[in-house]
Amino acid sequence: MKTPEPDDKLYLHYNYIHKLCQIGAEQIRANIGKPDIIIAIGGGGFIPARILRSFLKMPNEKNIPIQAIGLSLYEDLGTGEVGTIGKEVIRTQWLDFGALATHFDTLIGKNILIVDEVDDTRTTLHYALSELEKDVREQAEKLGRTNEKTIFSIFVLINKNKPKKADLPKEMFEEGRYFAPRECEDSWVNFPWEAIDIDTVSDLKEISCDLVKLFP
Amino acid sequence: MKTPEPDDKLYLHYNYIHKLCQIGAEQIRANIGKPDIIIAIGGGGFIPARILRSFLKMPNEKNIPIQAIGLSLYEDLGTGEVGTIGKEVIRTQWLDFGALATHFDTLIGKNILIVDEVDDTRTTLHYALSELEKDVREQAEKLGRTNEKTIFSIFVLINKNKPKKADLPKEMFEEGRYFAPRECEDSWVNFPWEAIDIDTVSDLKEISCDLVKLFP
Repeated sequence: MKTPEPDDKLYLHYNYIHKLCQIGAEQIRANIGKPDIIIAIGGGGFIPARILRSFLKMPNEKNIPIQAIGLSLYEDLGTGEVGTIGKEVIRTQWLDFGALATHFDTLIGKNILIVDEVDDTRTTLHYALSELEKDVREQAEKLGRTNEKTIFSIFVLINKNKPKKADLPKEMFEEGRYFAPRECEDSWVNFPWEAIDIDTVSDLKEISCDLVKLFP
Repeated sequence: MKTPEPDDKLYLHYNYIHKLCQIGAEQIRANIGKPDIIIAIGGGGFIPARILRSFLKMPNEKNIPIQAIGLSLYEDLGTGEVGTIGKEVIRTQWLDFGALATHFDTLIGKNILIVDEVDDTRTTLHYALSELEKDVREQAEKLGRTNEKTIFSIFVLINKNKPKKADLPKEMFEEGRYFAPRECEDSWVNFPWEAIDIDTVSDLKEISCDLVKLFP
């Protein structure tokens, strides 16, 4: 079988994505239990978040609520230094705290899973986590509930092994709250929802589902 | 080939869903042009919305922004009469008008595509459309922009041929602003993101991709 070249339009299978979510859900259940809420970073996190929810729900349990936030990167702005991170991220949608309060609760003291498709430069994840932590801290101070421990975890389908432009707290890794069922080198990863000809992807089943080839 | 029974756990393929979005995007481009914004009804609309965005974007065009709203049905409440529709729908997240105003604009005068997975009782779609129309109307009155025409369209992967509990405006159908690339009888449709064993779904390729069998 031909080894795919970076120029090839090689896409991961949907079924492969589905299985990454399945593996991830098992790890999540084992390490942090069932999340109280999933926060999907759109657009990339929408699909893994929806699949994950199926696997995280046990029979006769209620669906885990999903809140969406919209974040985009100004790819070509700034130097990537930590001080500029906030400026590189465009926030197109944030949590609906009003609806949350009515149908859920605050985020204070909850087990919260943030979901995106890929951890590339880590800029978006850094931004999402620190802004959410800030919101919770402010709410907790306002309500006099600073003694409650809010647990944030992160799930991505794939983590790229590359120098990151931003950090996540080291406790997140030490305590097993960072989930990335697959790692890959800093190269092309195409997600199936960007495929124009999905049948071509199907033809590459053996390649794209063979981790040895894709993730050396 | 055995005709599947309702008891069989038969799921639509991801690739099939992908193609429904591809077909839908062609119809949308042809009838209403490129939407200015996609409003995804979560959780079900997240996956079709993200796939649709790939197909609606032409080379060198900007990504179409996606805003998520969260709607759930109180399945067992009420009688389904029109007067009770609002009460059957739980709104867990709504548009972030603040972020929209900063990075996009208002919805006034825009070409807006609402996306969900399935049109079952039509209750959720009715609710989403009428609430969004109300928001736009109120904003337009406030800003003195009632002369601008806002166009709402709807995309679902599948419309079930069954008596609906709520209506959509008949102009939406007459003017080709309702997109449902497939119709089916009122029966079991399982989406792949709910499949526990996705390999089983793959084995059913011929069945689930054969429209004649699934959508008589």
